[in-house]
Formats: sequence, C-alpha cells, structure tokens
Amino acid sequence: MAPVRLGDIAAALGGELHGDPAMPIERIAALEQADEYAIAFLAQANLAGKLAGCRAACVIVAPAQREAALARGATLLTDDPYLYYARLSQWWRQRTEPAAPAGVHATAVVDPTAQVDASASIGPLVVVGAHARVEAHAVIGAHCTLGARASVGARTRLAERVVLGARCRIGARGVVQPGVVIGGDGFGFAPVDGRWQKIEQLGAVTIGDDVEIGANTCIDRGALDDTVIEDGVKLDNLIQVAHNVRIGAHTAIAANTGIAGSARIGRHCMIGGAANILGHIEIADHVQISACTFVTRSIRRPGHYSGHFPFDDNASWEKNAATVRQLHALRDRVRALEKKP
Amino acid sequence: MAPVRLGDIAAALGGELHGDPAMPIERIAALEQADEYAIAFLAQANLAGKLAGCRAACVIVAPAQREAALARGATLLTDDPYLYYARLSQWWRQRTEPAAPAGVHATAVVDPTAQVDASASIGPLVVVGAHARVEAHAVIGAHCTLGARASVGARTRLAERVVLGARCRIGARGVVQPGVVIGGDGFGFAPVDGRWQKIEQLGAVTIGDDVEIGANTCIDRGALDDTVIEDGVKLDNLIQVAHNVRIGAHTAIAANTGIAGSARIGRHCMIGGAANILGHIEIADHVQISACTFVTRSIRRPGHYSGHFPFDDNASWEKNAATVRQLHALRDRVRALEKKP
Amino acid sequence: MAPVRLGDIAAALGGELHGDPAMPIERIAALEQADEYAIAFLAQANLAGKLAGCRAACVIVAPAQREAALARGATLLTDDPYLYYARLSQWWRQRTEPAAPAGVHATAVVDPTAQVDASASIGPLVVVGAHARVEAHAVIGAHCTLGARASVGARTRLAERVVLGARCRIGARGVVQPGVVIGGDGFGFAPVDGRWQKIEQLGAVTIGDDVEIGANTCIDRGALDDTVIEDGVKLDNLIQVAHNVRIGAHTAIAANTGIAGSARIGRHCMIGGAANILGHIEIADHVQISACTFVTRSIRRPGHYSGHFPFDDNASWEKNAATVRQLHALRDRVRALEKKP
Repeated sequence: MAPVRLGDIAAALGGELHGDPAMPIERIAALEQADEYAIAFLAQANLAGKLAGCRAACVIVAPAQREAALARGATLLTDDPYLYYARLSQWWRQRTEPAAPAGVHATAVVDPTAQVDASASIGPLVVVGAHARVEAHAVIGAHCTLGARASVGARTRLAERVVLGARCRIGARGVVQPGVVIGGDGFGFAPVDGRWQKIEQLGAVTIGDDVEIGANTCIDRGALDDTVIEDGVKLDNLIQVAHNVRIGAHTAIAANTGIAGSARIGRHCMIGGAANILGHIEIADHVQISACTFVTRSIRRPGHYSGHFPFDDNASWEKNAATVRQLHALRDRVRALEKKP
Repeated sequence: MAPVRLGDIAAALGGELHGDPAMPIERIAALEQADEYAIAFLAQANLAGKLAGCRAACVIVAPAQREAALARGATLLTDDPYLYYARLSQWWRQRTEPAAPAGVHATAVVDPTAQVDASASIGPLVVVGAHARVEAHAVIGAHCTLGARASVGARTRLAERVVLGARCRIGARGVVQPGVVIGGDGFGFAPVDGRWQKIEQLGAVTIGDDVEIGANTCIDRGALDDTVIEDGVKLDNLIQVAHNVRIGAHTAIAANTGIAGSARIGRHCMIGGAANILGHIEIADHVQISACTFVTRSIRRPGHYSGHFPFDDNASWEKNAATVRQLHALRDRVRALEKKP
Repeated sequence: MAPVRLGDIAAALGGELHGDPAMPIERIAALEQADEYAIAFLAQANLAGKLAGCRAACVIVAPAQREAALARGATLLTDDPYLYYARLSQWWRQRTEPAAPAGVHATAVVDPTAQVDASASIGPLVVVGAHARVEAHAVIGAHCTLGARASVGARTRLAERVVLGARCRIGARGVVQPGVVIGGDGFGFAPVDGRWQKIEQLGAVTIGDDVEIGANTCIDRGALDDTVIEDGVKLDNLIQVAHNVRIGAHTAIAANTGIAGSARIGRHCMIGGAANILGHIEIADHVQISACTFVTRSIRRPGHYSGHFPFDDNASWEKNAATVRQLHALRDRVRALEKKP
C-alpha cells in the first residue's frame, strides 16, 4: 500500500489545505493521541484549547479555529470537521481493507433458483435459499443464511453469520453487523386453558436503504403485515425489535433497547441505550429518549423524555428507595399538615 | 398452490360458516387492513364497532357478534376467534411454507455415532456431535450445532445457527429461533486473591415439550445439576437464563429479560420485557410481572407486581429525580412538621 | 473411563483427607443434593447446620467445621472449600470431556497465509482469514470466524460460532462462549442534514489473558484506537461493550449490562446484571455496582453504588409512582409548611 500524503486527502475529500501536501500520514487520531504521522480533527469547539499542544502532522478544523490552527502548523479548513472525519474514515477504510472478491465461494450452498449478481460477493459457508436475490456489489459474509425469497440490495454488506429470513428484504447500501437475526418469529400466542397456542408469523421484515444494524440485534417478522425499518435508520447492538414495529427514517437507537410489538417510532428520533418502548404506542418525529427510560404511553410532541432512578451510594439509595415505597402515604401526610389550621 | 376457498378453512378448522364456501381467500388480515380477498377476525369485543366498515371476504367472530357480523356479510362463528386465528395461521403456514426435506444435507458434518431419525431434516452445514439424538420429524436448520449427547425431540424445529450444547436436551414440538445458545457455561467463579478461578459448569440444560425460545436468547448450563425449562414455556428474544434457573410450565417471558442464577419461577407466570429477576429467589405460580421491573425478593403470592421509574419530559424528570435523592430527608422533615404543636 | 476414588481427588488437588481413599465418587453435588456417591462442599459457614444431614460420600470443609464434619463421616479439609470446589470442577471436566483433536477439520476454510499452531484445534466449518494466528493448544469451535490478522492466544478456547473480527486479539487461556461477536463496528455516525454519515471504525479489540466472555456478548471495535479488555476480566452473557471502552483487570460483569462508548471501568470491579454505564465516564477500581443501576457520572471512590426503583404489588407501585411525578412539587409544599409560623 502506497503511503498517504496529506495532499492525497485534500484531493479526495476537499477542504482548504494549508501545509505541505507531501507530508506522510499514517493514521487518523484524536487531538490528544495524535503523533507527527497522524491527521487529527477538532470536532467540538470547546476542545480548541487543546489545539496548541497537538502534535499531529495536520489538524482538520472549522473556519472559527483558523488562526489558532495555522499558528500551530498544517491545517485543513472545512465547514464541518466531524463530517470531514467521517468521510476520511470511509476513504481510509476503502484504502486499507481489501474488497470482498466478487463471486460465490466454493463452499457456499446456493440454491439454483437464487439470483446473485455477478458483482456480488458470497462468502464461505453461506447458505442462499430458493429464489433469494443478491444485487450488485452486495457482500454476504461467512456463515450468513438468506432464506427463500429473501433479498439484499445493491452494495449492502452483511457481516458474518447474519440470518435474513424467508421473504425479508433489505435495501441498498446497508450494513448488518455479525450475529443479527432478521425475520425470527414474532412472539405471538393465543391463550387456551392456561396454555399457549402458537400464532404463526406470516409477515416478513422490510428494511429500507442506508440502514445499519448492530451485532446480535433481532428484528422479528410481522404477524400478518411486515415489520418495517425505514431508510437511514441506525440500530446499535443487542436491540430487540418486535413484530410489526415501524421505525421512521433516520432514527438512531442505541444498544440494548427493546421495542415491543406494533410500536410506531417517528422519524429523526434518538433513543438512548437500554430504553424500552411499550407495545402499540406511537412516538412522534424528532423525539429524544434518554437511556434506560421506559416509555409506557404515546409521545405526541417532539422533545426530550427521561425516566430512570438516579443512582447513589448504596446506603443512601436504600434509604431513599425505602421511602419511595411510602411516598403516597407521605403525600397524604403533607396534605394533612396543610389542612391544619 | 391451489387458491384457498372459504369452505376449505371451515372444513379444516370448524366453526359455523355463513357465506359462500367458494369465496377465494388470499390472505389473513386484521379487521382494518382486510380487503375483499382477506379473512379477518374480531378478537376483542371492544373492536366490534369496526365490524360494519370491514371489507373482508369473511369475518371470524364470537357468538356475541353474530347479528352484527351477519348484517355485514360472510361470517365464521366460533367460541374463541383469537384461538381460531392462531389455528388458521398454523394451517396457513403449513400450506405456504415448504416442508424441510427429510434426510441429512450433503454439507452437514454428522458424527457416525449420532442417531438421526430417517424422517428428520438436517440442514446445510449443520454439525452433529457424537451420540447426539435427533428424533422423528425434527428439523435442524442451517449452521446449527448439536454437541455430544445432545438430544432433540420429535417434531422440534431448530431455526438457523442454534447451538444446543453437549448433553443438553429439548423435548418434542419445540421451536427454537435463530441464534439461540443453549448450554453455554454458567457464570461461575471462585474469588482467590482478587482474581477469579473458573468453576466448570458440569450440569446441562433440560427443556420440556412445546417450548419456544426466541432469537439470540441464552440458556446457560447448570453448575452441577441442570437448568430446567418446563413444558410449554415461551421465551422471547435476547433473554438471559442463568445457570440452575427453573422456569415453570406454561410461563411466558418477554424479550430482554434477565433471570439470575438458581432463581425459580412458577408455572403460568407472565413476565414483561426487560424485567430482571435476582438470583436464588422464588416466584409463585400465576404471578404477573410488569416490564422493566427488578424483582429483588421472592414473591410468594399470585398477583401483579411492578416497579419502574415513570418517564416524563426531561425537565420534569430531572426535578423529580433530584428530589428522590433527598427523599429520606424529606420524610424526616414531614415528621418534624408533624411533631410541631 | 475409570471410576474416581476419593483418594484420586486428594492426590490431584491436595487437602487433608479423613476417610477411605477407595470410596467411589461419581459426582460433585451441593450439600443437600448429595447422595452416597457424591462429594459435596460446604462453601458458606452459615450452611454448617446442614452438614449433619448430608448423605455425601465425603464433604469438603474448612478447618472451622472439622469436628462437625468428622462426626458425620469422610472429610476433606482445606482452607478455602469453594476454591477447592472450583479446582475440583476443572479436574472433573478434564477427565470427562474429550479434548478437542489437534489439527484442522477437513471442512474448515483456512487462508493459506494464516498461522495455526500444530497443537491447536480448528473445528468443522471454521473460517480463518489471511494472516490470522492461532497459538499452541488453542481450540476454535465449529462455525467460528477469525478475520484477517486476528489472533488467538495459547490454550484459549472459542466455543461455537464466535466471530473474532479483523485485527482483533485475545490472549492466552481465555474462554469465549458461543455466539460472541468481538470486533463488530462501533456505533459511530456524524449527523448531516438530519441524516447519518457512517464513521468507519478503524480500531480493533485487544483482550488480555485469562478473560472469559459469555454467550452472545458483543464487544465493538474502537473508532480509532482499540477497545481494551484487560487480563482476568469475566463478562457474562448478552453484554454490550461499545467502542473504545476499557475494562480493568479482574473486573466481573453480570449479564445484560451495557457499557457505552469510551467508558473506563477500573480493576477489580463487580457490576451486577442489567446495569448500564454512560459513555465517557470513569469508574474507579474496586467499585461494586448493583444490578439494574444506571451509572450516569464518574465514580471516583471505591464503594457500593445502586439505583433502581423498588418493586411492589402493582397497585402500590402505581400510587407511589404517580406521586414520584409530583415529588418536586411535594418538596415545595413541605418547604412552604416549614415556613409557616
């Protein structure tokens, strides 16, 4: 691999370069970890104080930091340094990570009726079911299974051992991390005499374009209609998405969150880790939910919502928690005091 | 596939049919989504008002809705429409989903000492260990692993990449969703000088008949004796069942729940999502636990138990949460006020 | 397998044996479950009352229980019976579980540039990437994937279908349970006009020696630098470790816990199940965190910290929870009362 020169980066990604384009760049680094072979970035204005001490070969900054950065040394000026860093990371990965080879690995088990684009990559020990579709430049990692009539859009990348169940579809440019299960059965049972009769889950999962799904996350197939993940949604690891949930476009959800059946989450929401959303409720667009919050009723208005017990040293927590269990009674005592003449 | 006629459904599943048995049925639908090729069902009496506007070819209703349904059009009368829907979904799936072929896929790796019934289906790239048993009509999906002496009962279906560890057993008619791990090691260590010495987990997992286990759920093997899941238990996705837990028959547990070591859960319980059960406690039969509740001591009596911080807009939550941390002191202040003459 | 005699155990593991070394031992059991072919152990002094009724062939006890144990029958005296039990369980497993055969299974797909020690065991249907390393006596279970330049230390055992991503490393004597994902992408995106631009995760995961990782746990690769798990860490099942987290040596973390990005956890910590740790915070050494606690700010001092809503019968909980939402107002009312003359 040819070494990267500072000028290569500016040529590929733009920005106003002040400095020697021949400078060798060996890594991307945060301001404080950067050495003289690193390119660093200043994403938050409140870190500007760390600029002077930064040893990086070059620093990516916004125009507001122009003077301070130039005083330090080589500088790449751009309106949004964090976005520039994102694009730089993509460019860097493409250079350093070998592309998956087009074609079907000799050990893959591909049904003869499946349609796999010649530019797609089917990894070792993959299983592709009847009438499944894999579009151009898609990459299917080792040990993945695509069920019958499942479909993977162009340039989507499934990492290792992803299950995409029968009739489930993911659009273009998606990224699915290892261990994800798309299209397991939703949790549906009818009670009968104290036992449970299975309700077969006849729907599937429909996932839009530009969706990312984190490791070991589960998205269940719908009972009758499909579970739907709209375009641009980003799901972190170990998330549970139950049957017939709909997640609106460009919503991002952090790890360990659970979304119960038929909940509808709006667009452009941000949901913190280990949050839980009750079934059948609706959440408006542009809602932010803090980590560890249990959302038990619909949220109709954009805004920021929270709900968790504050942590404390154990002794203090125990005293306060014990009082929580007498809280309603305490309120009544206050009321009685208020009525005293 | 031959199209379904309304009369086929009544012939297969019973009920009192009012309407033309020749009507074509292309799908099952909820009342509001149904079109003229759908069969719909009215499972909750409080939705009866939607009956008149329902466009379905036929509606499955209870006798109480007889008049309203007949006024609308074709009707299937049955005592329990939701149960009828469950059975219809099963009948539908059997018609539409190809049965897994009997026999061992050419790419499976099956130990010569394993006993696989000739009617069972062993999928591609499955690994079956020494002396493992697979009974009649069981289906083992792609990439599953059955450890040495593991055993799968008749008509049980393991979806893709399930791990059933050495000596672990599942009974008849079970369903195991993709990614499930049965028989990982329990979390057991002895502390010694600030380090941890592993306690090998010598037990296994014993699972009864008619059990369903959701995607990526983990059931650890016992330390000495077995972890036990009794008949008819239904576990959702991403549940943690620690070593030596016992879950009583016909209990249903929603996703993301964690059950710590040696807890004993009764029969016919219902446990909401993301609940947590402390180790070594006991929960009686017929207990219902709300989602997000942390059960920290044994529950001896049937009933409904809850415990989570109510969510609110963030500003309100912050003020109330801050006060929670002074709650014990607040109680003392109320007490002082009460003592004032 | 030759039957075990009591004297074999004492010969292998030490301790002061009082009793017939020829006694056959068929199992290890807890005090109450033990029959006359079992060896039992008394790990907690408060269980000493159960000693007299124990039917075990032999009981492992500390010197404090010497008299009571000898009065009962055969006895193995040792300073730390629980540790003795741990070592006995290891010895027992080695005797009863067949060792994985050295060499590469015929169905494994191993890149020719990978370096696999001749004493290592590569199971069926394993995929080993370019320049990956597997050191002496390591065991790689069925369906595992080692990415390019991944590395597995001596005597480390990966169970079935573990993903160890490109450039990720685990040290010696580790145990990784089934379904673990090491080196999935961290959850990093730059916002741009209401959409998300992926930040490629260019770091890896570095795991020390003697680390155990539970089933379906996920450890994300770092954004630029590595995510780090130090020596002797024990992680239970279904844990989320986000990018650039550092977990200090000999810390143990129970199931379902989530640790957000760049959090730093100290050494010798114990973290209960379903706890959550906010991103970028720091936790000192020797901190204990109760299950279901959400740690939202750094903890600088050793100690025990908690924070969860106490559970109750549903009706009581509802009343108290409703009052929680008026708690700040209640405090103001108390204040007003206090100001009354």
